[in-house]
Amino acid sequence: MKKYLFLNVALLLGGFMQAQLANDTIALRKIYDYCLTESKCYKNLEYLATKIGGRISGSQQAEKAVEWAKKAMLEAGADTVFLQACMVPHWERGKKEVCKITDLTTQLNKFLNVCALGSSVGTPPKGLTAQVIEIKNFDELEKLGTAAIKNKIVFYNVFLDPKKINTGEAYGESVRYRWAGASRASKYGAVACVVRSMSTARNDFPHTGNMGYDTSISKVKIPALALSYNAADVLSENLKKNPNLKMTLATNCRNLPEKRSYNVVGQINGSQNPKAFIIAGGHLDSWDNGQGAHDDGAGVVQSIELLSVFKTLGIKPKHSLRAVAFMNEENGLAGGKAYAAVAIANKEKHIAALETDAGGFTPRGFNVDTLNGLFKKVKSWKPLFEPYFVDKIDPEGGGADISPLEKQGVPCIGFEPDSQRYFDYHHTADDTFDKINKRELELGAAAIAALLYLIDKN
Amino acid sequence: MKKYLFLNVALLLGGFMQAQLANDTIALRKIYDYCLTESKCYKNLEYLATKIGGRISGSQQAEKAVEWAKKAMLEAGADTVFLQACMVPHWERGKKEVCKITDLTTQLNKFLNVCALGSSVGTPPKGLTAQVIEIKNFDELEKLGTAAIKNKIVFYNVFLDPKKINTGEAYGESVRYRWAGASRASKYGAVACVVRSMSTARNDFPHTGNMGYDTSISKVKIPALALSYNAADVLSENLKKNPNLKMTLATNCRNLPEKRSYNVVGQINGSQNPKAFIIAGGHLDSWDNGQGAHDDGAGVVQSIELLSVFKTLGIKPKHSLRAVAFMNEENGLAGGKAYAAVAIANKEKHIAALETDAGGFTPRGFNVDTLNGLFKKVKSWKPLFEPYFVDKIDPEGGGADISPLEKQGVPCIGFEPDSQRYFDYHHTADDTFDKINKRELELGAAAIAALLYLIDKN
Repeated sequence: MKKYLFLNVALLLGGFMQAQLANDTIALRKIYDYCLTESKCYKNLEYLATKIGGRISGSQQAEKAVEWAKKAMLEAGADTVFLQACMVPHWERGKKEVCKITDLTTQLNKFLNVCALGSSVGTPPKGLTAQVIEIKNFDELEKLGTAAIKNKIVFYNVFLDPKKINTGEAYGESVRYRWAGASRASKYGAVACVVRSMSTARNDFPHTGNMGYDTSISKVKIPALALSYNAADVLSENLKKNPNLKMTLATNCRNLPEKRSYNVVGQINGSQNPKAFIIAGGHLDSWDNGQGAHDDGAGVVQSIELLSVFKTLGIKPKHSLRAVAFMNEENGLAGGKAYAAVAIANKEKHIAALETDAGGFTPRGFNVDTLNGLFKKVKSWKPLFEPYFVDKIDPEGGGADISPLEKQGVPCIGFEPDSQRYFDYHHTADDTFDKINKRELELGAAAIAALLYLIDKN
Repeated sequence: MKKYLFLNVALLLGGFMQAQLANDTIALRKIYDYCLTESKCYKNLEYLATKIGGRISGSQQAEKAVEWAKKAMLEAGADTVFLQACMVPHWERGKKEVCKITDLTTQLNKFLNVCALGSSVGTPPKGLTAQVIEIKNFDELEKLGTAAIKNKIVFYNVFLDPKKINTGEAYGESVRYRWAGASRASKYGAVACVVRSMSTARNDFPHTGNMGYDTSISKVKIPALALSYNAADVLSENLKKNPNLKMTLATNCRNLPEKRSYNVVGQINGSQNPKAFIIAGGHLDSWDNGQGAHDDGAGVVQSIELLSVFKTLGIKPKHSLRAVAFMNEENGLAGGKAYAAVAIANKEKHIAALETDAGGFTPRGFNVDTLNGLFKKVKSWKPLFEPYFVDKIDPEGGGADISPLEKQGVPCIGFEPDSQRYFDYHHTADDTFDKINKRELELGAAAIAALLYLIDKN
């Protein structure tokens, strides 16, 4: 009797699970169909990237982006849209930077493509001129010390490792030269530093990105700039021929007082558990030199699309869903910190937080925190994602904006599109809307909405 | 005793298999490292696409491409390079095509972006003018019949299905309108046909591609052209407003006598079984309107790279390896047929044949024939490919050029890169070298070389 009972329960359970799988399969197909035929995310990104453009924290464009995001979320069908205030750094690039290498003895006189790194101080108004010392890594810097470095411009000629299949991994290895290079060079008396752009793309676009001064290493803040890949090649070749060449750098960037800015949050209220939240977010700010199309306009419009998907398809989530357009990911994370602080203050329970900040490329998968069994759950849905070629589900995920939530114990997810082209455009004037492929962007929006649908249901 | 013996054998076998796996892991890493740091495939493609350019069968550019491929294969380290003759169609586009829609009553007078389909006859020298009838599918055509179609231009307004995740599947569904549309419209007295371009990309590039006349359906050969996606929209909108509008078409294309051309085959001789062959190929010809960068310059240079990988890394294959640059894939398959005929004549045993003709995009996997257990074998190597994100290994593969070999029982493989962007560029003036991403192209070359390495060894 017991045996039969067990069998019946097993059959019932089996039948239930199969029906569940069939329902989920149908729901995912609807989400994808919607995103591939009716989605507004491409049009939204066109507006954000081409009409508003580069939108660094503190800029007028960032203000416009906040207004736009609010409107876009309401149009997407949010039950409510609200702003979360935060104080953001206000760094301005000023006039276009100049970099020139000269050597009177060999008649060398060349301009190199360069840009100031975010947060860097500027040079004196007329620029600065000094000899250049090329170094390969921090160990070499330490060995050379003051004798070799004092009064020079340190050139960190560090290549992104092209052998890494995931380009983000290579970026992770090299980015410390951009971030920490200035203070470490200043410690030995350098007057400025230039870094090879964090990219494997051999072109003339310098890649900006944030740097920081560590006053425990050096009290003297020196200007920090990035050379384009080609410019770094030219400099290195010329240094071999003319080790005494001089470099003149002129930048006009400056750090102004902090400004008030905002995260924009669009919410669909949960039908069963409205005080528990599942969120997807990207960052609304971008660097000033391009249009912030892949970084991270794509993530913002994909997050907003989540609202459209649920509203248009009439899916009523159990938990409250949020699309979050975070402010100030690029140079401070004020938005991410503010979101997490509000979550604590309001005792908001977060079931999961997803970040999409790796470009609008073809989706490959998700990196998912193992916390609360989330990774295991998402992994079990792999068969549902396989028809959409989104099947790389790996443990440990997240993103910069949601990292303060992660510290509170919220299981986090990083959306992982194909990484091959991301660092070609990242932080450059070339990160423009024409680099976005409509289908790839839409497939990303669909993958994110599908995953949040499953998390909400289960 | 027996038990221990069994245990020992199992341990030995386990150890052997682990050592094997470790060796293969190291070999694949070497292949990838080489392709991502030293490969010439990007430079090779730059030359083929930008210095030779579009290279339709029978053209001077196709002749130049044959010479170039021979040289490139020798430089890549082939033990021997030889040509295989074949007779190819010689179709010429002639002067740029014109398409105009007019309606005197509504003052309509618009030029539309259009191009002749490959193999199409031209219009009379001064063009032809007729009313247009828009149809959605062949069923509708059949229902309308002669009464509605006679003396008109048939407009096949058939969309590629954006909901298909694999764009090749959507293409496969719609391409019959391009291929067979002319004869089927001619049967009912149409004077010409125009098709919506086989693409989901909303832009102004018309997509050419081959068409055929089926004289068993209609003896009258009518001109066939493709409208760009936007032009098809414009035409359809205007037909709603002016159902009597007239279209003028003028093309100068013509079919000339066949010409002699060649496949180019580069070989590394097998060290143990030189009479058995494993091949990788792409097609050397391309449409005339672009540079044939993704279609299929990418496949050609990836195949040639196979030779470099083995030679430079000093890997001596057991079987003979061949890179094949097939001629005339686009409008006849003369090269593919010639290769298969030579294989029969020379009693060449082919272990496996791989085709790369889906663009130089990020690799996703391989489609592999189940013949001779090849699929099962390749599937068992999935763990080796996972670190390279090449893990979609599905049954039933191949490609147009190797399809005649497949008919002889050779197990075939289709290399499957990401398909999202392929039909944006396919057969257009926009299929140019600047659309190639160096890393994505190299990752494809590496994946192909790695797979052939494993097939050769096992």
